Amino acid sequence: MQFTSERRHDDGVVEREFTLGADPESRIPGTLWTPASTPAPLILMAHNNALPKNEPRLVARARHTAAHGYAVAAIDAVGCGDRPRSAADEQARADFRRAMQAGERSDEVFETYIGPLVQNAVPDWRTTLDALLSLPEINGRVGYSGWTAVGIRLAAVEPRIAAAGLFAGGYVPLAQREEARQITIPLLFLLQWDDEGNPRQRALDLFDAFGSKEKTLHANLGGHVGTPAFELEDGSRFYDRHLR
Amino acid sequence: MQFTSERRHDDGVVEREFTLGADPESRIPGTLWTPASTPAPLILMAHNNALPKNEPRLVARARHTAAHGYAVAAIDAVGCGDRPRSAADEQARADFRRAMQAGERSDEVFETYIGPLVQNAVPDWRTTLDALLSLPEINGRVGYSGWTAVGIRLAAVEPRIAAAGLFAGGYVPLAQREEARQITIPLLFLLQWDDEGNPRQRALDLFDAFGSKEKTLHANLGGHVGTPAFELEDGSRFYDRHLR
Repeated sequence: MQFTSERRHDDGVVEREFTLGADPESRIPGTLWTPASTPAPLILMAHNNALPKNEPRLVARARHTAAHGYAVAAIDAVGCGDRPRSAADEQARADFRRAMQAGERSDEVFETYIGPLVQNAVPDWRTTLDALLSLPEINGRVGYSGWTAVGIRLAAVEPRIAAAGLFAGGYVPLAQREEARQITIPLLFLLQWDDEGNPRQRALDLFDAFGSKEKTLHANLGGHVGTPAFELEDGSRFYDRHLR
Repeated sequence: MQFTSERRHDDGVVEREFTLGADPESRIPGTLWTPASTPAPLILMAHNNALPKNEPRLVARARHTAAHGYAVAAIDAVGCGDRPRSAADEQARADFRRAMQAGERSDEVFETYIGPLVQNAVPDWRTTLDALLSLPEINGRVGYSGWTAVGIRLAAVEPRIAAAGLFAGGYVPLAQREEARQITIPLLFLLQWDDEGNPRQRALDLFDAFGSKEKTLHANLGGHVGTPAFELEDGSRFYDRHLR
């Protein structure tokens, strides 16, 4: 693990870019935000559909969570963000974009594009977790935040994830909807009530399916990007209850 | 308005019993909790189905909310708690209890018993509000907490209610389900996901029906009385956002 840049913010949060691995083809680029006071619990933060780690809304969420006292890590997924793309990656992405523009929002299209993204993201997150847990700034307690499908897959295979805050907006492949029953860690599931293109009933069914005894649904009026700012505070308090 | 007793708690909360009105038949008995620092916003706190104001779970909720910085008032409804009961009150109550014990949880039974309770509760709450707002301890900002049906009825006719925290468990008469569309104040709607005898879909439909632009649903796993303690904190923060 190599840190390639460091930036200190006024609130004491330190933001560092890192890379993991030597091979340029498989190297994982990431960002680690650490709070003023360390060692701290770690939150792995993933954005829907493998959006890049420097996407402004993800960065804002990470900064806020770090200011609240958490170390936060984001990475670019295989074939996304700063990572090299194969011809197959480019083709899959172009096909998906074409289908979306044509209004083909079928499960089949989503399974074809999102399914592999989810499967491929998880090994990188585990590699990243291994590396981060060796840092003195991180105290060994780990939570997850964001993309529901990856959160389910990761929590199903990774016992070090102790709590997860999941955003309901976004396609969840059938495999992860079935895996949801195996998840038993505490969950905060965040739903935008009028999320365009994300069926509400499917999100409610998923909330119902999770095997966790402690699970909370927060639903707010509005569309996909309309989550109220206070949900960031609520999210931090959720982690405080389970990672402190 | 007459205060009949006063008790000071260690956390600075002052708890006073009061009565409103001179006529023993129509006199409203109530409890007012005021925080250490006043003047403070006021929360009108009503329990499902007109349970008495000294019911321990209501008292715990009121004490917690007062310790957070709010004045909180609870009253006994007509024919309930410490108030005189007419022969008709006794009969209605006995009929309802008999129907419940016989497992007759039909809408008709609920409409017959709960409908009038809701209608009758609201004038007393407005009388109480008038009296409380004249107290120097109360700063004029008003919220409501608890029984959904009364919250809807009260918010529909009482413009002084600026925000409401509603508990989804409990029968909501059809009249209030229709009135819900007229409600436009910020809402926090609290649902127990596995509430015995309170159909989940009906609660979700009600959340959907409210006319408010700012409405948040919190759902937690478990039965009617299983609301997690952290929801009290979340409730206080909801009032902080709208009554401060």
